Amino acid sequence: MPVITIDPGQFTNALAAFQDILGPGAVIEDSAQLADLGDPFAPPQGDWYKPGAVLLPASVEQVQAVLRIANEKKVPVWTNGQGRNNGYGGAAPRVSGSFVLSLKRMNRVLEVNEQSAYALVEPGVRFFDLYDHLRETGSKLWMSVPDLGWGSVIGNTLDHGVGYTPMGDHMNSQCGMEVVLANGDVLRTGLGGLTGAKGWHVYKHGCGPAIDGLFSQSNYGVVTKMGVQLMPAPECYMPGWLQLKNDSDLEVMLERLRPLMLNGTIPNQPMIINSACAMSAFTQRDAWYTGEGPLPQSVIDEICRQPMLGAWVMRFALYGDEQIVERQREIVSQALGTIDGATLTFSKYDGHNLPELDNPHERVQAGIPSLALDQMTRWYGGEKGGHIGFSSAMPITAADGAAIRDLVRGEVNAAGLDYSGVFIVGKRSMIHVCLVVFDTENAAQTETAYAVSKSMVKSAAKQGYGEYRSHLDFMDLVADQYDFNNHAQRRFHEVLKDALDPNGILSPGKQGIWPRVMRS
Amino acid sequence: MPVITIDPGQFTNALAAFQDILGPGAVIEDSAQLADLGDPFAPPQGDWYKPGAVLLPASVEQVQAVLRIANEKKVPVWTNGQGRNNGYGGAAPRVSGSFVLSLKRMNRVLEVNEQSAYALVEPGVRFFDLYDHLRETGSKLWMSVPDLGWGSVIGNTLDHGVGYTPMGDHMNSQCGMEVVLANGDVLRTGLGGLTGAKGWHVYKHGCGPAIDGLFSQSNYGVVTKMGVQLMPAPECYMPGWLQLKNDSDLEVMLERLRPLMLNGTIPNQPMIINSACAMSAFTQRDAWYTGEGPLPQSVIDEICRQPMLGAWVMRFALYGDEQIVERQREIVSQALGTIDGATLTFSKYDGHNLPELDNPHERVQAGIPSLALDQMTRWYGGEKGGHIGFSSAMPITAADGAAIRDLVRGEVNAAGLDYSGVFIVGKRSMIHVCLVVFDTENAAQTETAYAVSKSMVKSAAKQGYGEYRSHLDFMDLVADQYDFNNHAQRRFHEVLKDALDPNGILSPGKQGIWPRVMRS
Repeated sequence: MPVITIDPGQFTNALAAFQDILGPGAVIEDSAQLADLGDPFAPPQGDWYKPGAVLLPASVEQVQAVLRIANEKKVPVWTNGQGRNNGYGGAAPRVSGSFVLSLKRMNRVLEVNEQSAYALVEPGVRFFDLYDHLRETGSKLWMSVPDLGWGSVIGNTLDHGVGYTPMGDHMNSQCGMEVVLANGDVLRTGLGGLTGAKGWHVYKHGCGPAIDGLFSQSNYGVVTKMGVQLMPAPECYMPGWLQLKNDSDLEVMLERLRPLMLNGTIPNQPMIINSACAMSAFTQRDAWYTGEGPLPQSVIDEICRQPMLGAWVMRFALYGDEQIVERQREIVSQALGTIDGATLTFSKYDGHNLPELDNPHERVQAGIPSLALDQMTRWYGGEKGGHIGFSSAMPITAADGAAIRDLVRGEVNAAGLDYSGVFIVGKRSMIHVCLVVFDTENAAQTETAYAVSKSMVKSAAKQGYGEYRSHLDFMDLVADQYDFNNHAQRRFHEVLKDALDPNGILSPGKQGIWPRVMRS
Repeated sequence: MPVITIDPGQFTNALAAFQDILGPGAVIEDSAQLADLGDPFAPPQGDWYKPGAVLLPASVEQVQAVLRIANEKKVPVWTNGQGRNNGYGGAAPRVSGSFVLSLKRMNRVLEVNEQSAYALVEPGVRFFDLYDHLRETGSKLWMSVPDLGWGSVIGNTLDHGVGYTPMGDHMNSQCGMEVVLANGDVLRTGLGGLTGAKGWHVYKHGCGPAIDGLFSQSNYGVVTKMGVQLMPAPECYMPGWLQLKNDSDLEVMLERLRPLMLNGTIPNQPMIINSACAMSAFTQRDAWYTGEGPLPQSVIDEICRQPMLGAWVMRFALYGDEQIVERQREIVSQALGTIDGATLTFSKYDGHNLPELDNPHERVQAGIPSLALDQMTRWYGGEKGGHIGFSSAMPITAADGAAIRDLVRGEVNAAGLDYSGVFIVGKRSMIHVCLVVFDTENAAQTETAYAVSKSMVKSAAKQGYGEYRSHLDFMDLVADQYDFNNHAQRRFHEVLKDALDPNGILSPGKQGIWPRVMRS
């Protein structure tokens, strides 16, 4: 796609109308303020992906009014919850200069159901907010959080984000949405289509075609409410930490891990972290090496030998009845603790009376939000570190793990950057995320980071690895790889987009889906 | 909706074209044969829901050709896999006299992946077929099956059908579809959009809006391939059987069961069965009572006192490591076995060397298909019994369980029929299915059964209980209950339907979704 900007006359005209309906303070147009409301790790292309103004509605009715005006004035709005989709474009819109519809002010926890273990939240509710609400109200329920807790629960879920409790597949743990469609109509999914339905947030499939998935990674609607499944606090919480000595132990381990995931012995989403990535949570690169190019093997080896580290480390956790957890510990120990040179350690806590946890990995697997791992982006020094998420999905096998590791490490290193990689393991699949870390104040490094990420999109696809999520700057490129039957998926989405949003006002370009008015 | 029939001239014209492309034997138009290819438990309205002809394509290309002709000739086709959707219309089309697209001949198991535990199947594959394939090829994997094994794996899944292993939420256990759209285009969902993707059948969300749900209970496409998740055979398989003495023990039990479902102590989908329903698997009604009207309480009490029965019985099962299963048995026994007057019994098997299981409940929870429970429809005598499934979804609570039981039992009894009810319990919700059983050769009873089912659709909705599935004869009525914001769900689906199928050829009326050409 070429750069698309919106017509200045149309913009100004719409801006006035938005100000009218939202009132003072709810439209940000000041360029100094806007500078902080885009992508903090933006690509080097000057003015791409900059918001023209930010709209802050406070209610469903105001969202409807915003969309009505957007349709009248034919201007696009790019929706986000908190705009913390960092590594994938942050708060920035795909179409330069367009309006950003930020749902930050819609931040109520509308319900917590202790019996059936769910919450109903608005899109401005951050993981921190939901956590605080649960603790302040004396709830016995645990939630799931990603590594950084500042994002929107709904926003993270809709972008197929992950957490690390047994409910860590967030999209799979949502149940029941309210959505404002492009035409301003308000829809409730699933059983919510029946006014007063008692099972809206417990039964997923509804009656008729199930449409919840349609609003994930999507520009078909603005999600204004969502059911979030929670879990009863477990009697026993036992986080584990596996250290693997050699790079190739990854393959051995994946083959032994898969059966434990399939049969539920490990119920959460383990994260397998390479040495540079694990170390970046604690130190900056210059503590280890100040030369150009990727870390030499000798330096990597030195990092691997540090306490609690290894070529790969895996965090995971067990939850539940103490006797069952103890037996799961034995099974895991037999399977993974017996890998040559491996070290496996566990902590054990009373889930009903959890103490203050110092270790951020133990916190996140108990669903306690934190910002501890934000440090990782500062690997190359300074406070202005950034990263791009290069994120591929695949089966849990040695062959797939080795293939994506070798491909990504090879390309990243050849570009002169360090390989910072994690595998996030689900019940039947895993995601390999390469944090392509760079210093945002280093223009050359920024350019390199984006260039290598885009190059990897193509080489990974050639080997059968599709991205599950992507940065604004290469959403089109990722969509291009989904090429089966002459891009049947994209052609299907274009039909839906044109039917649901004929004026193309909602987040044009999201995941490579463009409305007719912007397709060339 | 009024009765809709298709124009005889158009029908004949299209029939010839279908015969041309499908060849001899692949189009059934003989009225004697057709008589057996509709709804075996049909409502009393004469010619409603009768197929005009049945089309039997043998390949994706033939499905595409069928849809091309249907578009050209403007005739509707009603898709099914095996047409065993009994209780909900069987093989019959919503539009009288229209073509039925039966996918029976597309019956290949295309792949079984032992590592990642899934199969890729075509829509004609029955549960029996997949089971036979797994056993014949020496697979170590278990599958999930519904109570009757003669149906299509894909068909059951798409209609939100259930099974009774830990993968019993079938729609949740599907991963990755191939779909022929109304325009003949072939689409693959999720990662399958990327040619050669390695994770098509293990990673669910894909990139961009997730569309799999859109093809369930749907008339948006014809699913021609689907990934079905399987499970490794467990070391230990322990089916359990709980007998509850009093009707009101249901409420006590539901409150104790919910935490066991939420924390995974019971990992499968338990079924809670009332006495008449349980007895109908073994005997006919006249063994107990030959009077008119519903069974008197004294007769019900007598049935409850039979061996292995009670006011309610629950079947469920535990799977996995023997020590963990033994501990789960203890936890379940403490929670449920202590209910006043309850009896709780377990069997225990080596999952890797399962013996021949005689008990159909133990078979189905091990994923072994059977037809044993087909007996249930013969309650009122003869070989021509039928039933309607009246199926509502709700939270797992005493209040909800009691409310739906009382509502349904009250209405069914008032109509002079016996109450045959089951709760199928998922991780966070349950479905109450009332088998409204009747003798298909008794016209008055048939009429009563349909009338009371339709009446309950409305009264259940008023109390907040939506049907999750419905019979052809009241799909529109069920859709009517989904009334939030002036039927926003239906209006949304009509936009999608018109965009994806402008000629309205695919299964018009399915779940109350009608194409523009048939909307009044």
